[in-house]
Amino acid sequence: MEPRIGIFDSGLGGLTVFHEVAKSLQDWTLLYVGDTARVPYGTKSKETVTQYALEISRFLVAQQVQALVVACNTASAYALPALSETFEIPIIGVVEPGAQRALALTQNYKIGVIGTEGTVRSEAYPQALRALHPECEVLSQACPLFVPLVEEGWFEDPETEGIARRYLAPLQEAGVDTVILGCTHYPLLKGIIQRVMGLTIHLVDSAEEVARSLSEQLKGHALAQTATPPEHRFFVTDAPERFQRVGRQFLGGESLQKVEKITL
Amino acid sequence: MEPRIGIFDSGLGGLTVFHEVAKSLQDWTLLYVGDTARVPYGTKSKETVTQYALEISRFLVAQQVQALVVACNTASAYALPALSETFEIPIIGVVEPGAQRALALTQNYKIGVIGTEGTVRSEAYPQALRALHPECEVLSQACPLFVPLVEEGWFEDPETEGIARRYLAPLQEAGVDTVILGCTHYPLLKGIIQRVMGLTIHLVDSAEEVARSLSEQLKGHALAQTATPPEHRFFVTDAPERFQRVGRQFLGGESLQKVEKITL
Repeated sequence: MEPRIGIFDSGLGGLTVFHEVAKSLQDWTLLYVGDTARVPYGTKSKETVTQYALEISRFLVAQQVQALVVACNTASAYALPALSETFEIPIIGVVEPGAQRALALTQNYKIGVIGTEGTVRSEAYPQALRALHPECEVLSQACPLFVPLVEEGWFEDPETEGIARRYLAPLQEAGVDTVILGCTHYPLLKGIIQRVMGLTIHLVDSAEEVARSLSEQLKGHALAQTATPPEHRFFVTDAPERFQRVGRQFLGGESLQKVEKITL
Repeated sequence: MEPRIGIFDSGLGGLTVFHEVAKSLQDWTLLYVGDTARVPYGTKSKETVTQYALEISRFLVAQQVQALVVACNTASAYALPALSETFEIPIIGVVEPGAQRALALTQNYKIGVIGTEGTVRSEAYPQALRALHPECEVLSQACPLFVPLVEEGWFEDPETEGIARRYLAPLQEAGVDTVILGCTHYPLLKGIIQRVMGLTIHLVDSAEEVARSLSEQLKGHALAQTATPPEHRFFVTDAPERFQRVGRQFLGGESLQKVEKITL
């Protein structure tokens, strides 16, 4: 059987995770689902997001994936327990690897978390961090304008920098030395976030951490013969055009082939 | 039978229309549906948006509304023909009233239209304007950051003004004398848009125009006895909390009672 990993997100953002996983696990074929008909998850309730995550996972498991990456912070925060109860393959979210990495980097144990409204409201990062290190201080900040700024492609623009200064001010005042980019879109704003926070502040990129953690988990997994290079596939729940157009910048300009529309 | 009007939008924005209709048609009970589980429509395809609009309209017609307001520019642009074919009650969108009003105000027949990606891509306003006045020049500009800025409540903030200057520059350079606010969220940014465009520029507020046009259409409609004041109802497809919290500012601070979750 071809070795397959399923990755899903509410939309485009998970492509940053896809990109890192594709670099780290080059023998695996990746199946990516972007739930573009129902994006965003960040403002939706736990119940709704869990239901969507179950539907997508059922689709991917039926495609015989041997591991599942929840490349969406909101879905990781809300739906991971339900998914782990339902499916028997390894399932990895973006919260746990990010929390572990932040604790490995911080020196003053003051950690900032930025994300969507849903991720912040879920308290998933503070809970994960305190479970690993009960004394750490966690300051969360929702940055709802960052996703549309990324989708506009305004990665290095003065408007983006102004908004970043406003959102990040409370984290600076609190003296955090590490910031978790708790949304898969945010790695594309790393430059501005680093500049605003200061060059000595550690930024934790969920996409990189998931790839690292997944490589660990799948190390030694016996691999069948596979196409070289593997032919990754992309599935979306709405028309593929926008996903293809905007998605390119998440893959460093590489174009997205084979984007298929599915109904869940 | 109690006189009822159904109003729907992809989410919160249509509350600006609700607000104006409630002021103009005080004897009618309004039923509002916000499709908060599937918001936004602006980036979704025509096919998907039309399907959603049909589902919501079926729900409202089953609640015995006697007129239907599509208080969402994307849905008006995409779904109005399908809705008019399916249902026999009067159905009014936001595009036609806005286009008529713009043509009544303009003197140089250079008209700007601002809206979501979907509304702009649909070409609904240019088509409606040219159908009424073939020689008018129409310049469209998608402003995808305006909706999240409104939902942040940054109505009069420097970050919003900076972004408005950037989005509106092409309209100013083209010398438009009238701008259609082609998204139901935008009336909340009227102050900044007016300041950036200049005080002599006419702004067309879809919410006001829909209320005006609906009053015309329903004038002389025989009204049964109704509760005074009528008890409006709100339905959402995701958890009501965020809708109640953020929705207040669309109704001038008035709180939203009776928000019920429905499944379509």
